[in-house]
Amino acid sequence: MSHGIKALVFDVFGTLVDWRSSIAREGEAWGRQHGLSVDWAAFADAWRKAYHPSMDKVRKGERPWTILDTLHRETLDRLLDEFGIRGLSEADKDHWNRVWHRLRPWPDTVPGMLALKPQFILGTLSNGNVALLLNMARNAGMPFDTILSSELCRHFKPDPEMYRMAYTLLGLQPHEVLMTAAHNSDLLAASRQGLRTAFFPRPGEYGPSQVKDKKAEHAFDFVATDLVDLARQLRAI
Amino acid sequence: MSHGIKALVFDVFGTLVDWRSSIAREGEAWGRQHGLSVDWAAFADAWRKAYHPSMDKVRKGERPWTILDTLHRETLDRLLDEFGIRGLSEADKDHWNRVWHRLRPWPDTVPGMLALKPQFILGTLSNGNVALLLNMARNAGMPFDTILSSELCRHFKPDPEMYRMAYTLLGLQPHEVLMTAAHNSDLLAASRQGLRTAFFPRPGEYGPSQVKDKKAEHAFDFVATDLVDLARQLRAI
Repeated sequence: MSHGIKALVFDVFGTLVDWRSSIAREGEAWGRQHGLSVDWAAFADAWRKAYHPSMDKVRKGERPWTILDTLHRETLDRLLDEFGIRGLSEADKDHWNRVWHRLRPWPDTVPGMLALKPQFILGTLSNGNVALLLNMARNAGMPFDTILSSELCRHFKPDPEMYRMAYTLLGLQPHEVLMTAAHNSDLLAASRQGLRTAFFPRPGEYGPSQVKDKKAEHAFDFVATDLVDLARQLRAI
Repeated sequence: MSHGIKALVFDVFGTLVDWRSSIAREGEAWGRQHGLSVDWAAFADAWRKAYHPSMDKVRKGERPWTILDTLHRETLDRLLDEFGIRGLSEADKDHWNRVWHRLRPWPDTVPGMLALKPQFILGTLSNGNVALLLNMARNAGMPFDTILSSELCRHFKPDPEMYRMAYTLLGLQPHEVLMTAAHNSDLLAASRQGLRTAFFPRPGEYGPSQVKDKKAEHAFDFVATDLVDLARQLRAI
């Protein structure tokens, strides 16, 4: 093919799965069982808000390498207290922390991946740990060929090591790998390591008040409306 | 399920794919095109014979970490000379070295994996590098959920680091992971790290004169006739 792309590597949280609605929906069901009255969308937002700061401590060397499941759990323990949710067993907390393993895909995610799969290697390239991404992929029916995770290089995006790991492990040249994300900053960091880039927006990722990443802010190689549209542009449909 | 197994990790060369016949068959076709008269089964045997010695140099620290594609290529360069095959271009040699990316599965491999896939996480646990295993999986239609490779921990089996990596990255307890192989030594090393073990023989792996690994020589958790039989024993069929 003229574009020469052999593999797509995907950002996952927000790009392929809808973390906010997934957490809110599961929280509501779980809260009803436990007799809790909580604004679960706000809970999801607070959990996600701690995402970058918690990884930044690792990225800056302020703490040793720590997988995302552990960072999520530390934030969860704090939020349970802040939201007045008390008396949970360890099994309850562990189950609830693993809601990140059960996030649901956007409607176009699985159809887009299934269309792309015959022609392209499909991998994650995510800050999630391997087990989190693997369980999520199986639960959501996302047909990845392999899981590329921050856990494998012990660096979180946007550290350059993550993008270099992608083409190194895939045995490809950087320009044969298409980083696919709904986040401008991720793609900009990928392009600096020579990867090709594809953007589509997820304007509802952060709920109705989202301001960021509503459109492509740089000259990415592909700009699409969603993953099915990207598959069309790559001539996979 | 009563056995408590959540993931199967597979030895690949010999266990899932028939390296000897695959190389011999492709060699014969390729040799005809290039006007070569070579005993390709002997070529395959010689190539494979260098496998353990070449890895052992890395395992013993006599040379730095090196991926299997590179070890294969070094052996290939020597064998081309020994078998009197001359005048190949770099592209020819690279294509021929990648015959390991195109190995064909045994007849029960893909049906067995497809039966197991809904219930179990399926991963490689192989000394092959990621790209080799990934390309092979896609070419052969082996539906792995992820590729676990020596390249990720920079140790070759039977180093204990490889088996520990499997349950660590999968986020599981050792006894929840079933190491599946047609080789007694691989399973024995896995069992020492607490993994469960499943054996089935591949009596034709090394051709008609094979003496090793014709049956289970230790008390493995499962002993089957092939992968479809193992799937039945795991109640996946």
